[in-house]
Amino acid sequence: MIDFNHWLTLPVKALDTDSADQALVRQSQLTKPAGSLGQLERLAVQLAAMQGGSPQAEHVHITVYAADHGVMAENISAYPQSVTAAMIRNFASGGAAISVLAKHLHASLDVINVGTVTELEEIKGVQDQRIANGTANFHQQAAMTEAECQQAMLIGQHNVECCQQNGTRIYIAGDMGIGNTTAASAMACALLNLPASQLAGPGTGLNAEGISHKATIIEESLVLHKNHLDSPLAVLRYLGGFEIAAMVGSYLQCAKSGLPVIIDGFISSVAALCAEQICPESRHWFLFSHHSAEPGHGAILQAIDAQPLVNFNMRLGEASGAAVAIPLLRMACALHNQMATFEEAAIAGAIS
Amino acid sequence: MIDFNHWLTLPVKALDTDSADQALVRQSQLTKPAGSLGQLERLAVQLAAMQGGSPQAEHVHITVYAADHGVMAENISAYPQSVTAAMIRNFASGGAAISVLAKHLHASLDVINVGTVTELEEIKGVQDQRIANGTANFHQQAAMTEAECQQAMLIGQHNVECCQQNGTRIYIAGDMGIGNTTAASAMACALLNLPASQLAGPGTGLNAEGISHKATIIEESLVLHKNHLDSPLAVLRYLGGFEIAAMVGSYLQCAKSGLPVIIDGFISSVAALCAEQICPESRHWFLFSHHSAEPGHGAILQAIDAQPLVNFNMRLGEASGAAVAIPLLRMACALHNQMATFEEAAIAGAIS
Repeated sequence: MIDFNHWLTLPVKALDTDSADQALVRQSQLTKPAGSLGQLERLAVQLAAMQGGSPQAEHVHITVYAADHGVMAENISAYPQSVTAAMIRNFASGGAAISVLAKHLHASLDVINVGTVTELEEIKGVQDQRIANGTANFHQQAAMTEAECQQAMLIGQHNVECCQQNGTRIYIAGDMGIGNTTAASAMACALLNLPASQLAGPGTGLNAEGISHKATIIEESLVLHKNHLDSPLAVLRYLGGFEIAAMVGSYLQCAKSGLPVIIDGFISSVAALCAEQICPESRHWFLFSHHSAEPGHGAILQAIDAQPLVNFNMRLGEASGAAVAIPLLRMACALHNQMATFEEAAIAGAIS
Repeated sequence: MIDFNHWLTLPVKALDTDSADQALVRQSQLTKPAGSLGQLERLAVQLAAMQGGSPQAEHVHITVYAADHGVMAENISAYPQSVTAAMIRNFASGGAAISVLAKHLHASLDVINVGTVTELEEIKGVQDQRIANGTANFHQQAAMTEAECQQAMLIGQHNVECCQQNGTRIYIAGDMGIGNTTAASAMACALLNLPASQLAGPGTGLNAEGISHKATIIEESLVLHKNHLDSPLAVLRYLGGFEIAAMVGSYLQCAKSGLPVIIDGFISSVAALCAEQICPESRHWFLFSHHSAEPGHGAILQAIDAQPLVNFNMRLGEASGAAVAIPLLRMACALHNQMATFEEAAIAGAIS
């Protein structure tokens, strides 16, 4: 396995500005009024800059990272902790939203258990890479040791490396972990210096009282760790989760090795924000899919200057929102690569 | 061919409320927090209500209706009139945006020439149903005779009838006609009693001066015909176009025979507004795909109480925005029909 500190220093791959320029020229030649395909034009050009040459959105890979959270001891979720393990089984047996979407999109799907609270039976289609029995309760102590946090990040790094060797052209990471909107909200508070009341939301379905309690737990945790939250890596270690750290690692690796990433919703955007604060250039490799119904998402999107493609009021996680963006990318690519130019169609007279 | 006046009196098919109720119950049983798939849940339930039983979004048919506009004599477009015919050829040869999207979506595609200004050569893949050499210039006289308007509407009616016989489950109508945002804007002004300055926009690419001239032409035309614009059918006849009338006819037939329609952008929404004013119950069969970049679209969407699925800043017409919505419907259906229930996945403990 790669040395963590060496890996962190590896540069981000530069975008292919020649391909972007060529894609822009081609867009201006296609048989449509200039700019009339709106965001679909922008997407094709962005993908061309990332992939070099003609943009394409086949060969999509989705990895769902799943783990449990010690902060569940503070009663911060509408669902019991056992649901994390139950959903891992549901991913593997094909019944979860992301399983259905991956199949529908002909995308490959990895499910990686990075740390459920108890060991699970062997499950076909699930990679057991448990780091520990869930994170520690960050309301009492750091969620992870430094070694655990690095191990989680390198699980994401390694997954991306494998995907690229297997021909993946677009990467998606998703999350499963009952309690993880509390961890992600706490991280976002620390990364953006915002109060918990602005970022804590219902998650899987808390009522107003539950949200208020969640915000209090987060505020108390921020006070507890205030002398340690001096870097994005420290924020991830003290307040994050194994699955969130794995996502951060995967996003950084995508940027370093030049693989476009579709960012999902709330948890995923916090991981992207953390990755950007660790390595600002990594941002160039992120495409944002959807605006989540989780109320804190807007502040995070604003901080990272992201305009997601769609706003469907989704709040499921599992990479489901990122998956929904894939057909849009595919149509953008089909239009870009297959439409006739004005010259090919022998259409003259457009006022430029 | 069916008698026009008899056809107009035929009732709209009622939605299947039992299927909608069953779909709602099923959504509440799927392995996700209640409501967490947002608009994708709503779409599945709406389609179930329209189609009866399990929703599905395969067997999509797209018809592009193309025609020329007499009001082009008033210099209201950035493109010359010859582009209508050139684009008809481009649809047929596969180079236009909608040709690429139809192929990508495995949707069937009809291209119907309902009235180019000159007769075209025989073109494989284009149905020649020219009503006249374009409409008359509505800045001088009615765009269509009553017989022409009825003929155009029944072309749309007949197309839908044929589609349904061939197994179409979702219908899309698109428009091609240089100058047709002027016709559609004029219609919307009359239907909504709004000033032309609010609804006239750049269309394919007018500058500010061009838009101002377009608004003046519309205002003058509204004054010219003010004693005749006393019904939505009259508005269509005096200010519309052959392709717009065909779309109105197709939308009414979809509602009468119970076929879900995806509404495209500006032109298509004006046709839907006109259909709704002719027959208010027809509205139940319309799903709105995208918010166009054409500035007047917002007012029309508001009038018809529509919240389109996406806002991609598109303004191409040809049904391209409606086509972009199809993969979203398909994912909504896949999730609805294929996800496991909590019982199937043996997941307990969700707080209801």
